[in-house]
Amino acid sequence: MEFIENAVGRKIPKYIEGVGVLKPYRGPFATKPEGRKYAPSKAYNTPGDNKILNNIREAIEKTGLKDGMTISFHHHLREGDYILNAVVDQIAKMGIKNITICASSLNKVHEPLIEHIKNGVITGLQTSGLRGKLAKEISTKNILGSPVIFRTHGGRTRAIEAGDVKIDVAFLGASACDKMGNMNGVDGKSAFGAIGYAMVDAEYADKVVAITDNLVEYPLYPISISQTLVDYVVIMDEIGNPSLISSGATRVTKNPLELKIAENAARAIIDSGYIKNGFSFQAGSGGSALAVVKFVKEYMEENNIVGSFASGGISSYMVNMLESGLFKALFDTQTFDCEAGSSLRRNHNHIEMSASTYANPHNKGCVAHQLDIMILSATEIDVNFNVNVMTGSTGIIMGAQGGHPDTAAGAKFTVVVAPLMRKRIPIVVDEVTTVVTPGETVDIVVTERGIAINPRRTDIIEKLSKSNLPIMTIEKLKNLAESFTGIPEKPEFDEEIVGIVEYRDGTIMDVIRKVKQK
Amino acid sequence: MEFIENAVGRKIPKYIEGVGVLKPYRGPFATKPEGRKYAPSKAYNTPGDNKILNNIREAIEKTGLKDGMTISFHHHLREGDYILNAVVDQIAKMGIKNITICASSLNKVHEPLIEHIKNGVITGLQTSGLRGKLAKEISTKNILGSPVIFRTHGGRTRAIEAGDVKIDVAFLGASACDKMGNMNGVDGKSAFGAIGYAMVDAEYADKVVAITDNLVEYPLYPISISQTLVDYVVIMDEIGNPSLISSGATRVTKNPLELKIAENAARAIIDSGYIKNGFSFQAGSGGSALAVVKFVKEYMEENNIVGSFASGGISSYMVNMLESGLFKALFDTQTFDCEAGSSLRRNHNHIEMSASTYANPHNKGCVAHQLDIMILSATEIDVNFNVNVMTGSTGIIMGAQGGHPDTAAGAKFTVVVAPLMRKRIPIVVDEVTTVVTPGETVDIVVTERGIAINPRRTDIIEKLSKSNLPIMTIEKLKNLAESFTGIPEKPEFDEEIVGIVEYRDGTIMDVIRKVKQK
Repeated sequence: MEFIENAVGRKIPKYIEGVGVLKPYRGPFATKPEGRKYAPSKAYNTPGDNKILNNIREAIEKTGLKDGMTISFHHHLREGDYILNAVVDQIAKMGIKNITICASSLNKVHEPLIEHIKNGVITGLQTSGLRGKLAKEISTKNILGSPVIFRTHGGRTRAIEAGDVKIDVAFLGASACDKMGNMNGVDGKSAFGAIGYAMVDAEYADKVVAITDNLVEYPLYPISISQTLVDYVVIMDEIGNPSLISSGATRVTKNPLELKIAENAARAIIDSGYIKNGFSFQAGSGGSALAVVKFVKEYMEENNIVGSFASGGISSYMVNMLESGLFKALFDTQTFDCEAGSSLRRNHNHIEMSASTYANPHNKGCVAHQLDIMILSATEIDVNFNVNVMTGSTGIIMGAQGGHPDTAAGAKFTVVVAPLMRKRIPIVVDEVTTVVTPGETVDIVVTERGIAINPRRTDIIEKLSKSNLPIMTIEKLKNLAESFTGIPEKPEFDEEIVGIVEYRDGTIMDVIRKVKQK
Repeated sequence: MEFIENAVGRKIPKYIEGVGVLKPYRGPFATKPEGRKYAPSKAYNTPGDNKILNNIREAIEKTGLKDGMTISFHHHLREGDYILNAVVDQIAKMGIKNITICASSLNKVHEPLIEHIKNGVITGLQTSGLRGKLAKEISTKNILGSPVIFRTHGGRTRAIEAGDVKIDVAFLGASACDKMGNMNGVDGKSAFGAIGYAMVDAEYADKVVAITDNLVEYPLYPISISQTLVDYVVIMDEIGNPSLISSGATRVTKNPLELKIAENAARAIIDSGYIKNGFSFQAGSGGSALAVVKFVKEYMEENNIVGSFASGGISSYMVNMLESGLFKALFDTQTFDCEAGSSLRRNHNHIEMSASTYANPHNKGCVAHQLDIMILSATEIDVNFNVNVMTGSTGIIMGAQGGHPDTAAGAKFTVVVAPLMRKRIPIVVDEVTTVVTPGETVDIVVTERGIAINPRRTDIIEKLSKSNLPIMTIEKLKNLAESFTGIPEKPEFDEEIVGIVEYRDGTIMDVIRKVKQK
């Protein structure tokens, strides 16, 4: 295998059998697209068309789904999703093999895929992330036999639009759907809010199957995905359990350590001058990230500051800020709890957006590139400010790229919040296990005991030099962490590549290797 | 020139220099699309992009608009549109020549195009229709020198999606727009309502310029066309005069003749059993067509009937029916008056739709194909039920295809209303001057003195046989007309082809020849 070093110093294979030629990452905006997008297939419709089918089996038959094809799913129902397992079980029953899944993300609930992978039903995975047993089986046993392709939320829509992945059949869950396939995620017992990830699948997949547990009278409104894109409609008893959508991302932490980190981060943001009228803001998931919002909110209220928009996965906490007039609008690609879903239904200024609108670098303007402030968490940060959110200190896959690299590249001020250590494992390290977000796009790292500013940001260094925040170099922060934890043993890896970390522009940021079994 | 006869008996050239190979019309759903759509060009965006330009000239320069290119416009501002003339004037000033205009329609206000055509600035026209002096100059003098391509509303989006026409630069008026190019037509002093025709241009044009007289704070909401599709934003003092949008399409006629036709039509529809709970409905423009709605409304109220949806160009009359609970929803691709525009802004169940969603036969399901009843007007109808709405009895172009052929093909029951004669010219004739809507898609022709049912609809013939409506054969209706008018002299034509009437599926329904000068 021949390798080439990319712009973050990772050795990337030039070619992987079954995947193709890999282009190394060259910088956040260095690789520009050429040519034209992938062209969706033409379609045809006549009066009296009946799209309603009896069950998933019939949908598989009618769409012509067969060995070797690629199918897609969205993960808006998160740990409550029933659709992916139901479809793949049926595919397995019908004896279809060698299927690639292109999902916006995979969660613990998708553990049954392990058996389908072992049986040769599923032979390819493309996703934002992997968690739980499935991730462990892939990381430690390479059960898939080919690398999982990990994409960012923006990168996935870019890849689909560019034809890097061609979806044969998309199975898209809708909490409300009419007989012609108009869909939304805001009505019905399984309402999950925005359906932003599914929009690109609907546009580009050769065949699109809407799956719902709530068939409504024609026409449905509001329409998030149009009948013009849908081939078939299947009714299930339940598409999922919406009570499992929220994963605590909504609650502000009470953990004093996380609150300390958040307070430090908020002070750094405020002192850097970014909180002012018309500013825009996003906070990722994770205890400290959301807690930052609490301090930002207090500062806005005290100083009568009104922001422009907040974006992202939207929780009821952000809805509360919208309804209090602290932000003019919310952009929502994925809704984190029921209350936020109801706001999307109710508030004109709570705007549903596609994943392309959210974060695709290869359209004419994405929302992530309009952000002033982005708060992100991390599992590891290295002395070059590179961030890992994909693998744990054991080397095992346990997370997702999500919008992390997208928003870091887009925002004017990207703040990474993390504890200095977790269970005696240092978080600031010499070299991250896996590079997900390049250090060039990270402006500041905030921990409970120290804050490191990217040397590129001389303006911020100057601004914060007068503050009494514990500013130090990233090397000193690393040494501080190691002074508590010692230098931990690093995981050992085999040569086999089990994952490819694709940057949002389609170049390769890193590869993930099989963890050596001891 | 070699010809081939199409399914309505018109002789279609096999090939026209500069246009290409023509496929003859074979039947409303006989020609199926093959292969994949046209692929829009890839794009690229970075944080800090500034889309705002100083003026139209700068937009022309930045988009790289040059000799031989195709530019596009929408006609939502109808006779009040200022954008097309401003852009073409600037193009002319800059010495650019040989430009093709692909507009959703052209109106009398676009008369200045005559000079631009004579000067070689504009050498190609593609539109739904032509009116006034421009139409006359083309019909009688062939000033363009190449045939105008006339498309239906559904056919235009089909053609753009299929790559039959490739738009280099789209100039899209928005009554509200933000700095990133998010657009709508419902806010601002020049609000025109739905922006349905422009949506396909935004998706497929290589470069998209938003032109607005109302730049709003980011982000605009509601968003009808997304920032992800827009390259540049230009601010004009006024994009148009919205008081000229309404062309009387809103008022119910007081003309007793038109009321008589409408009453006959309403009785035929009611007796045919189409007005029942859950039915859907559209009425085209024209005095009698809208008057039918008045009678239908009264019947619905008397019998407590609630319809599913009404669609089309939407006027305040339809909004009133929506708000009275007579219809569950409105689908709106083009708004006919300010009051309806305000309803689109206000009512969740007043649904904006793209022209593709409205009427494109080559997507996975258009609204026109969901219609139960369609009321259409006509300038001529022949004994084969073919309808002309493009040319007058003089042979001169004076109208537009609009959604006429789309909805006629889509609706379960297509009613054409027309007076038996206009100014001693018979409307029901042996052979229409120009076939626009094929007789196969027309179910019934209603005049003030007689009603003819298409012999294909034996079910309707049976149902109406018991009524006391003046049912007769179409031949008898024609004879009745001629008994009043005599047989009028037909216009004479030269060989030169000045217009091509393209059916919604891209096949050719008819050609329009230059009117012979006497």
